[in-house]
Amino acid sequence: MPSYKLTYFPVAALGEPIRFLLSYLGEDFEDYRFNSEDWPTIKPNMPFGKVPVLEVDGKKVHQSTAISRYLGKLAKLAGKNDWEALQIDVAVDTLHDMRQAIANYWYDDNEETKAKKLGPLKSEILPFYLSKFDELAKENNGYLANGELSWGDLYFVAISEYLIKMIGFDFYDKYENLKQLRENVLSLPKIQEWIKKRPKTDF
Amino acid sequence: MPSYKLTYFPVAALGEPIRFLLSYLGEDFEDYRFNSEDWPTIKPNMPFGKVPVLEVDGKKVHQSTAISRYLGKLAKLAGKNDWEALQIDVAVDTLHDMRQAIANYWYDDNEETKAKKLGPLKSEILPFYLSKFDELAKENNGYLANGELSWGDLYFVAISEYLIKMIGFDFYDKYENLKQLRENVLSLPKIQEWIKKRPKTDF
Repeated sequence: MPSYKLTYFPVAALGEPIRFLLSYLGEDFEDYRFNSEDWPTIKPNMPFGKVPVLEVDGKKVHQSTAISRYLGKLAKLAGKNDWEALQIDVAVDTLHDMRQAIANYWYDDNEETKAKKLGPLKSEILPFYLSKFDELAKENNGYLANGELSWGDLYFVAISEYLIKMIGFDFYDKYENLKQLRENVLSLPKIQEWIKKRPKTDF
Repeated sequence: MPSYKLTYFPVAALGEPIRFLLSYLGEDFEDYRFNSEDWPTIKPNMPFGKVPVLEVDGKKVHQSTAISRYLGKLAKLAGKNDWEALQIDVAVDTLHDMRQAIANYWYDDNEETKAKKLGPLKSEILPFYLSKFDELAKENNGYLANGELSWGDLYFVAISEYLIKMIGFDFYDKYENLKQLRENVLSLPKIQEWIKKRPKTDF
């Protein structure tokens, strides 16, 4: 078994999909959560100055999506062929488009423009994406792609906690098929175990 | 052979990596470039209202990176194993981080904040990414990953034309290993053929 060490801030956010996937794989991993005041000393040792970073047998890798896809392949959650793998990748990259729209609001440090972004985000942008994702989940039996569990589902559910905290309300609420997707992921025994033992965090 | 139709605006930009990869594969594809005034009628027929969209035997797929990875697999340009595939994915997602920083400047419609972003972009953000990418290309024999050609290299070179037009100068200029990378891609016979026959566009 390879050794895994995840380095990230003490939050769920972009680290959580990786933690979900390592937990699903039943891998023992070092979950290193550093405090913000240590970031300036850690940053120069990270490949592109960013976290999360996963060390696999001491080799550092960044980019949470790429890492999650890699772990998804190890977990046999990456589709049965290239076309199925593509469907998962499409769903995850589309989730990132939605995340980008939320982050564009949340991380705007101009209070005036930030406030202006919230209306269209809640009334147009999110309903557009979420209703499309809900259709996808409906067509795929409560999953995002190929009618079965994939790393994309674990990614979606793990990161949605962070998105919900940024936007300020539970966006699954009106979407029955997305609720089923969430249930399908959160009821996995290895994920239940992880959620029981993980540190409680604000983000 | 599957039939391919690419639907996109009449620009290189996010469509060009797909066109590079289809050309590399030697695939005959319909390169449908619509005019901006037709976008409102086309948009509702696109999976998440976005382009580029590739139709593969009539099945529509969006997300340019996911599509490029898929075509890269068909072209045997996606690494020899999961670890190598991961290194390619990491490089491409990091390129998107750099693209995001450039787009954040270029698409800012407030002239004042836009002007303020250009300085740090040119003096800090781009040199940071480009020097790291240059190191990667040096370590990998003039490629981004695994010491050999991958779909990531085609993606990088194809999309860098668009990035260069946004930022306004040839960012390869100071980076010898990235110039080698560009040369490695542009000297591929199928890519040369494509570049000779493609429509000239501003972006």
